[in-house]
Formats: sequence, structure tokens, C-alpha cells
Amino acid sequence: MDTVIQTEKDFKELLKEQNAYKETIALTAWDMRTKIPKKGVEQRSEVMGFLSGKLHQLETSEKMKYFIDVLKDHSEDAIIKKTVAECEETYERNRKIPSDEYKEYVMLQSKSESIWQEAREKDDFSLFQPYLEKLVEYNQKFANYWGYEDHIYDALLENYEPGVTVKTLDQVFPDLRKSLTALLDKISVSSVQPDPSILEGHFPKEDQEAFSVDILGKMGYDFASGRLDETVHPFAIALNQNDVRITTRYDETDFRSAIFGTVHEGGHALYEQNISKKLANTPLSGGTSMGIHESQSLFWENFVGRTESFWKSHYDLFKSYAPKSFQAVPLDKFYRAVNEVKPSFIRIEADELTYSLHIMIRYELEKGLISGDIKVADLPKLWNELMQEYLGITPPTDSVGVLQDIHWAGGDFGYFPSYALGYMYAAQFNHALKKEMNVDEQIASGDFSPIREWLTKNIHQYGKMKKPLEIVKDVTNEDLDSKYLVDYLTEKYAGIYKL
Amino acid sequence: MDTVIQTEKDFKELLKEQNAYKETIALTAWDMRTKIPKKGVEQRSEVMGFLSGKLHQLETSEKMKYFIDVLKDHSEDAIIKKTVAECEETYERNRKIPSDEYKEYVMLQSKSESIWQEAREKDDFSLFQPYLEKLVEYNQKFANYWGYEDHIYDALLENYEPGVTVKTLDQVFPDLRKSLTALLDKISVSSVQPDPSILEGHFPKEDQEAFSVDILGKMGYDFASGRLDETVHPFAIALNQNDVRITTRYDETDFRSAIFGTVHEGGHALYEQNISKKLANTPLSGGTSMGIHESQSLFWENFVGRTESFWKSHYDLFKSYAPKSFQAVPLDKFYRAVNEVKPSFIRIEADELTYSLHIMIRYELEKGLISGDIKVADLPKLWNELMQEYLGITPPTDSVGVLQDIHWAGGDFGYFPSYALGYMYAAQFNHALKKEMNVDEQIASGDFSPIREWLTKNIHQYGKMKKPLEIVKDVTNEDLDSKYLVDYLTEKYAGIYKL
Repeated sequence: MDTVIQTEKDFKELLKEQNAYKETIALTAWDMRTKIPKKGVEQRSEVMGFLSGKLHQLETSEKMKYFIDVLKDHSEDAIIKKTVAECEETYERNRKIPSDEYKEYVMLQSKSESIWQEAREKDDFSLFQPYLEKLVEYNQKFANYWGYEDHIYDALLENYEPGVTVKTLDQVFPDLRKSLTALLDKISVSSVQPDPSILEGHFPKEDQEAFSVDILGKMGYDFASGRLDETVHPFAIALNQNDVRITTRYDETDFRSAIFGTVHEGGHALYEQNISKKLANTPLSGGTSMGIHESQSLFWENFVGRTESFWKSHYDLFKSYAPKSFQAVPLDKFYRAVNEVKPSFIRIEADELTYSLHIMIRYELEKGLISGDIKVADLPKLWNELMQEYLGITPPTDSVGVLQDIHWAGGDFGYFPSYALGYMYAAQFNHALKKEMNVDEQIASGDFSPIREWLTKNIHQYGKMKKPLEIVKDVTNEDLDSKYLVDYLTEKYAGIYKL
Repeated sequence: MDTVIQTEKDFKELLKEQNAYKETIALTAWDMRTKIPKKGVEQRSEVMGFLSGKLHQLETSEKMKYFIDVLKDHSEDAIIKKTVAECEETYERNRKIPSDEYKEYVMLQSKSESIWQEAREKDDFSLFQPYLEKLVEYNQKFANYWGYEDHIYDALLENYEPGVTVKTLDQVFPDLRKSLTALLDKISVSSVQPDPSILEGHFPKEDQEAFSVDILGKMGYDFASGRLDETVHPFAIALNQNDVRITTRYDETDFRSAIFGTVHEGGHALYEQNISKKLANTPLSGGTSMGIHESQSLFWENFVGRTESFWKSHYDLFKSYAPKSFQAVPLDKFYRAVNEVKPSFIRIEADELTYSLHIMIRYELEKGLISGDIKVADLPKLWNELMQEYLGITPPTDSVGVLQDIHWAGGDFGYFPSYALGYMYAAQFNHALKKEMNVDEQIASGDFSPIREWLTKNIHQYGKMKKPLEIVKDVTNEDLDSKYLVDYLTEKYAGIYKL
């Protein structure tokens, strides 16, 4: 028993080393996206590669294998047990890829991202095509190394949403699509339409920032454990639980991107800030999956930030920062304008309703690519057909169509579904929360702490101690079900569009 | 011969690794001083310790020893030869300290810094005394491990100003002191005194920043290879040649700290930005010593930024940013006010003339501490006596006396002389430059590029290819001589104080 305790101690030392590299990598990434001067990027990319390589070495080291083998069946400590399981998964997944192939793939990824950028700028898919073909090939190979039970794509999904499979998605997505499309049809023919033009008008950056900071404070974001910066593409990043940074984007002609973007990233950050301190310096100290992470950001952005209750309680504050042109806008018109639904080409600009349709298109396409049913050469055509079928619009160019997202260029297949899962999780959590408190009243009171505490108690604190579907089950007493998202959207838009 | 070339290649790989750690350490340090949220500091300190330990391991590894042994006498490449010599020095210095003692010392340093802070706040030297005693002891031990020819303190000086010894300093400092004191005496009884009260007045931060950025641009600071941030204690830091960051401090009641501070740090940054690209990814890519570095910052701050010519050509620009209260101040009064000489307690607030006297006091005291001639317990008394003797004033408290600087708390003995050396080097370089161009006219023209190019050609480009005294000799055809600083100050203050 004494040797187990000693081994646990040594294991923790290795984890600390791993975490030191992780924190350094996160800081480097944050700096590269927010502060680095232009000419510093090239050298820094090499440093980033070096650090990632070091982390990869530790994760797949003989030493790690030794700790896994010794502690797997002998540790009595619940956290250590879960940690060992997590480390074993990482070890196995990484060791299964021959290191030569991994290196080639890393080089291909970074090359592909720059080619994709060029292809998008020139609106020329053919430039990107050969790279995408190779990326698909590698992902097929990797999926086979990793193994799967039913569908080859499951092996990739596992990277982003452990436990979720093609079977799961093929169960929820078709129903969801049908319901969303039906709702979209009703909305588009409604005689009551919001007027988004009332949201136009110059809104100085400093005022947007001040309002964003106020709202973050109300959400319970701890500025002593984080900071807010400006970037082109907003993100949240955890260096550790006590240093969780977010960024936002200020568009002086459209305040929505900053306000809702900040609340969204703030939701991600609250998750990371409120993970149990007991998990510090273990690989369990982080969000459990992309989907659950997205559920937290979307919960705050939509289920709090875009509600009528929220604007009831914060409209005066908003007006205190807003320029003159907003002062006469009635709350009701404002609320409806920030909730306009309209099919559009670009995923990241989509509204709450159509967003999931964008995701389903990507899901169908990448599932087909990985299984071999779809050829890369056919992608642009298929993309446009699905856009027409799901959203009723056809992108005029590939730049605003198949070339719009960076994910595939980075080799990230299996990632997209997390976004739609995040929407469904959020709605299901919201439904569970409503059983315990009058959420509307709580939001209208302007005091979000009971809501945040509920999220921490039920979701945040666990970090990776629970898998995503385990959390869903524990919190809601049910399996994943798309009906909660449909019910929520139906009710919401019934009000806005008088359906 | 082929094996040498292969070994050189492998050696470069090791250097790249070393540099990756150095860049990461620099980024971490920059972030900790500029951006890190409060609660993130504790964890980050551990990460910093981890990264420093990794770098130390590489610097003292068997692999490094192997490369040094193989390449020392066999490489034909001038840069590799110098690199090997540099690595060997680092290797030898670090290997001579038993690793147990080194670890104890690192812990003592960080403990001492926090105790020193407390002692300074409470104005209680006795709190700090036992720590300082231990720090002195360790430095004596280390000095003996490292070895020296004449004076034990030489072993410490070598860390900061290679080649400079007690003999050197005891040759230049007494003369310098005599001349400075004589000049100070004349100045203090002059009937013509500047009126610094004309510099008072609220000066908004944004305007100070805009002016600072303009001046940095004129100096040739490349913003695509750097950035300017705000901190309490300004500094410059090179992550690599293409990412050299500076910080400054804005005091809205005294614009001088931002303007002269920015120019000072900009001088450090120009040195790092203009090192030959051939030295990239070697340990030669950095300033050659603390003293030469300080010569560059002081050159820009004083020999450019505080000259009459500078203000002649930039006073309109200054006024365009300055508040109303400055608009009526005549240039002549302004120039004299920013050059006021006045003995004061705090080193970092001292003027150009009295600064070196502050340094000499510290030099005498730390030399005595390390040689054992001075006891730590006697420091406060001796400090005050020397202040009275050199500057004619006695600090009312230890907080503004012996406890004011962090250096000793961090174990940095042998560092202080670099500051005075920097002044002397700068004056000597300035004298050499004047032989080649009419510096006053050049500054008055507002085009600093010929000056910067001269500094790059003669100093910057070499990085650590040349030792400090080698640079002085090569640039000026003379050994270090304090007379150039004395001549410069004498002439300058003759004008300002009508001596």
C-alpha cells in the first residue's frame, strides 16, 4: 500500500509537468491571438510546435504507461482513478498513431490551413481540394487505428464528444431538423416581423466594452481570475482555473457581436472558473467535452442573454451606455429585433433557430466523406444542394459556402456536431433548471447567482469527472432529447412572431 | 569533417530547444508583469520555476558538454565558435554550484523578496537582516566556487559585466565621484535654477501614450516586431529579435516618467531588434551585458531625449499633445526644467548627475559585504553615512534608504555597477559618434536614422559576439574612461545652470 501512495505522489509530479506545458501552450495561444506583433508569429509557431511535442511525449511516455498500469487497479482515490482513466485514453489514442504519420499529419494541417485561406480568398475550391482529400484520408486511417463499433465516424466523434455516436445523432438530428424547418416555415410567412434596422447606429467601442464588463460581473465572471481582451475571432481560454481569459469583438456599427459574444464566451469561462479546486493540476480540470462547453456558452447567450426578462432588467443599463439613437426604441421592439430569425449563408452569423441546420449539413457531409460515400470533389455541389434543401437558399460562391469554416482545413472532423449538441444540452438543462426555480423571475430580478450556482453544482464542478452524456442523465434524469430545444424555440418564437 | 558538420547540426537543434524555453520564459515573465489576473500568479510562479528548471537542465546537460567538447576545437564557423564559448561559460558556471545548494538558494531568493517587501512597508530592516545575511553567505560561497583572480567580488561582477573587475571600478569610480561632486557643488550654489513647477499640470494618459508612440516610431522602434504596454515598473523584454516588447508608466500629474521612460526602454528594445539575424536561435542573440544594454537606453534617454536639440525639433509635436497649461511655456524654460539636478533619496528618481553617486554607494557597500569587511547589521548606518558623504542628505527612514531596491533581496550582487558603467559607456560612445557626425544637428533635424544605424553598425548587430569592453575598445579606440561622462555633464550643466 505504501508503494501505491508513493506511486501516486510520483504520478502527481508527472501531471504537474504536463500541466505546466498545458498552461504554457494556452498562454502562447492566447498571446498569438491577442497580442503578438506580426513579425513574431513565425518563430512563435516553432515554439508552439516544440511545446506541443513535449506535452505529447509526456502523455505517451513509458513513465506514464507505468503509472497507468500500477494505479489502474490499485488506487483508492476517486480523483486519481478518474485521472488514470483519462490519461490512459489519451495514451492509447496517441500511441495508436505511428509517430511518423502523426508528424506528417501535423505538417499537412498547418499547410492546409494556409491553402484553405488562399482558396477562400480566391473563391477557388480546387486549390483546397487535394489537401482536403489527404486530410480525409488521414482521418480515415486514424479512425481505423482508433477503432469503432458501428460507424467509422464514431471514432472521430469520440475526440470531441465521448459517448456520442452516429447512432445517437441519427436519432436526434432528423426530428430536430423536421421541427426546426416547420418552425422556420411558419416564421417566414408570419405577418409580424421584427425590425432589425432599429439596432443600427454608431455605438462607440468604449461604451460597448463598459456594458460588456458590467454584464460579465453580473454573471459572476471573476475578473481576479481572468481578463477581457479584443480579437477578431472571440474565444475563451483557460490557462488554469484561476486564469480564464475571454476575448470579444467590437463592431461600432453593430453592438450585438460584442454583447452577445461576450456573454457567450463568459459562459465558457464560468464553466472553467468553477471546476472543483480538487481537480487542479490534473487533466480532469477542464470542460468535459466540446458539446457541454458549448451548452454553457449558449445557455448564457440565449437562455439568459436573449430573453425578454434579461432585457427587462438590463434595458436601463444598456441605454445608459447606448448612443442617442437607441433611447427612443421601445423594449418590446428591441427584444424582438435581437431575436430575428433569417436563413443566411454564414454559420457563425446564424440565429438560434437556423444554426443547428447549418450544423446538420456539415454533419451529413463529413460523415459521408469519412465513410467514403462522398467524394471531396463533389462537396461544393452537395453543400449547395443541402443549403437549398435545409435552409432554402443557395450560396452564390464557395467562399460563403463550403469554404467558410476553418475546421476541415485543420483536420477537425467530428467537431461540428458538438455545436448542435450544445444547443440541445442547453435546452435540456434549462428545462431541468425550471423545475427548481422560476428562471424568468430570477433573470428579471437581475441576480444571476442562483442560476450560476445551480450550473456549478450540477455541471461545472465536475470538470472531466463525468462524461457528457452522464452529466445530461444526472442533471435531467433523461437521455439526450431534442424535444426540449424544439419546445423552447417554439414557445420563444410563438411570442416574437405571434405564431 | 563530416562528423563535425553533423554535430553542428545536432548542436543547433539543442540550441533551438533552449531558445524555445527562453522565449516561453520571457513570454511568461512579460505576462506576469503586464496582463496576468491576480489569482493566476501563484500557479504561474510554479510554471515559471518548472520552465527555468528545464532550461537549466539543458544548459548543464551531458549532451551540451559533449557538443562543447567536440566543437570547441573543431568548428570552423565563427558564430558556432562563439556560441560554444558562450555555452561553455554557462555550463561551467552552472555546474560549479551543487544542485542542492542552487535549489535552496532559489527558494531563499523568492522568500527573501517577499520578506524584503514587508520590511520596506514596515520600515523595519531587522526583518530583512537574517535573510540578507544568508543571501550574502550564498553569494560568497558561489563566488568561491566560480573562482577569481584578485577580488572575490569579481566573480559576481562577471555575471553582469564580463571583463569588468574591482580593479576597473576602483580606477574609474573615485575620479568620477570627485568630478560629479564638484559639479554638484557648483550647481547647488548657482543663482540660476530651473523651475520644475512649470512641468506640473494634468496630462491625460492617452495623450502621453500617443506622444510616446510617435517618438518610438521616430527612433526606429519597429512596432511590427514589438508592442508597448503599461506597467508600474517599466521594462523591455526580448522574446526573440522579432518580438521585443516594452512597457511604460503613465503618471497623469507628471508626464516625464512616461516620455523619458518610453525612450529609455525604446533604447533597450532597439538594441535587441537590431542584432544580426545570423545570430537568431543562438545564445548570442541578446545584449552582451547589462552595462552595454544600459548604455543604449541611457543614450536615447539622455544623449538624445534630454538634449536641447531634441526639444527644439519636437516641442511643437509635444505641444500638440500637451494640455493647455503647457502651451505658454517657453522652450528654454522647459528644456532646463526637464534637466533639473537635485540630490534625492531614491535612485530610480535621480537625475543624470546624481544617479552614478547612488550607484557608487551601493557598489562600496556590496563589495564590503561580499569581502566580509562589512556586516549586514551595520548596513543601515553605513548607507546613511555614505548618502550624507556622497549626496549631502540623510534618508529619514530605511524604506527610502537601504531598503529601497529589490536587487539584494533577489540575491543580485554585482549588478548595480552596470548602471554607472552604462552612463560611462554611453558618454564614451557619444563622443565617438560626434567624431563622425554632427549629432546635435542630426537630432535637431528630427531624423534619427543615421544615429540608429551607427549604433547598429557599431554595437547592436554583434549581440554577444563581442564582450562589453571589447565593444568599447572597438568603437572608441580607447579603454573605458570616465572623463567622457564628466565632460559631457560639465558642458551640459554649464549651459543649463550658467556655470
